Amino acid sequence: MPEFYIILVEPRYQGNIGAVARVMKNFGFHRLILVNPPELSGEAMAMAMHAHDILRNAEILERFDDLIERFDFLVATSAEIASDKNPMRTPVFPEELENSTKIKGKIGLVFGREDYGLFNDEISKCDILVSIPTSEEYRTMNLSHAVAVILYELSRREMMGKIARMKKFERADGNSKRILLEKFDRFVDLIHDNEFTRKLTKKTFRQLIGRAFISGREASNLIGLFRRANERLES
Amino acid sequence: MPEFYIILVEPRYQGNIGAVARVMKNFGFHRLILVNPPELSGEAMAMAMHAHDILRNAEILERFDDLIERFDFLVATSAEIASDKNPMRTPVFPEELENSTKIKGKIGLVFGREDYGLFNDEISKCDILVSIPTSEEYRTMNLSHAVAVILYELSRREMMGKIARMKKFERADGNSKRILLEKFDRFVDLIHDNEFTRKLTKKTFRQLIGRAFISGREASNLIGLFRRANERLES
Repeated sequence: MPEFYIILVEPRYQGNIGAVARVMKNFGFHRLILVNPPELSGEAMAMAMHAHDILRNAEILERFDDLIERFDFLVATSAEIASDKNPMRTPVFPEELENSTKIKGKIGLVFGREDYGLFNDEISKCDILVSIPTSEEYRTMNLSHAVAVILYELSRREMMGKIARMKKFERADGNSKRILLEKFDRFVDLIHDNEFTRKLTKKTFRQLIGRAFISGREASNLIGLFRRANERLES
Repeated sequence: MPEFYIILVEPRYQGNIGAVARVMKNFGFHRLILVNPPELSGEAMAMAMHAHDILRNAEILERFDDLIERFDFLVATSAEIASDKNPMRTPVFPEELENSTKIKGKIGLVFGREDYGLFNDEISKCDILVSIPTSEEYRTMNLSHAVAVILYELSRREMMGKIARMKKFERADGNSKRILLEKFDRFVDLIHDNEFTRKLTKKTFRQLIGRAFISGREASNLIGLFRRANERLES
């Protein structure tokens, strides 16, 4: 995992800076760099909620060019998809940034001004341009929303892995699912005589269970139900 | 593609409501429902930027329960991953909502209060619970950030997944799902005597059906099964 830095270039509104700090902490990012920001006061802190520490530790730079030397990789962001703003730059989608999580080094994620975004010459000094796929009807996202989406993409696989490892998110293992399907099949045989209906019903249930990502607890709950039902129907 | 509605339950801050409207328009969503919101004034409009129309057309409801009848699927959102808040509810990740983009009908995406989120009984009235994978260090996202991430997930698939849309198959409307759940509930009552087990089993099935985005054909197939089973068990 590289060291990711979130870089806001000339952000104008304190509230946005605070909101960015908050969503950074939500997704496990802690390094914030502000290029020529406004004075930060209570408003930024209020929006940051429990991410005061990120704001307090934010590094302040005067000029965009101060960034260049410090990073192995600079990722520019833009709402512009294509030709009008920067004809020679083809953006990638956020999910294509996934590969960047596998490298080592310092990666700067650069977000531009609320109104003008990044200037062309700033984009051209970055290694790659990423653009969030938004509606033509209204392309420009709120600054902290754009940060939220990019950081969600970068962290989601790792976060999902962590959460999936926690016991609560555990899915039914193959065995308890197999037992559930056996009990259900038996139940169908007890209820329906028609072979076609039996088959169709069993298949339906199989597909549903597949789509529903059933957990172990849920499976054993339904196993209990159908076991009892079968006993009743067989007696 | 279903009709998606973004539903904010008792949002407190106007700025958040405006920010939600903006990100909705960014990702091509237009239907907003506010349950017991504050009075909207200039602040909400300022945050909405070019999404004034979404705010102006927002529908206002007084109570959460007014939602229930109107939707085929209600998707609850929560920052709580597991046991402490709602031990019996297993959430899915945002990307697992993908199946929902292929169905027909009305889907409500329900977001709770800034401080308390959705209450347990509100979550239990929804078909499925989705949770954005965030850091344990700070789970609770800003309201409009959570909306941004969910809508990004839902719309990103649409853009990339034109192929998936060609394969779309029709989903159970609210009515056949309701009948299926009724038949199933009756079945559980016939099988289990213990009230706790009954409740748990009914809830389990509801959640599974919610997650599986059951089709009309599948629902009527299972309705047939449980109707017959109930007749047998009652005789």
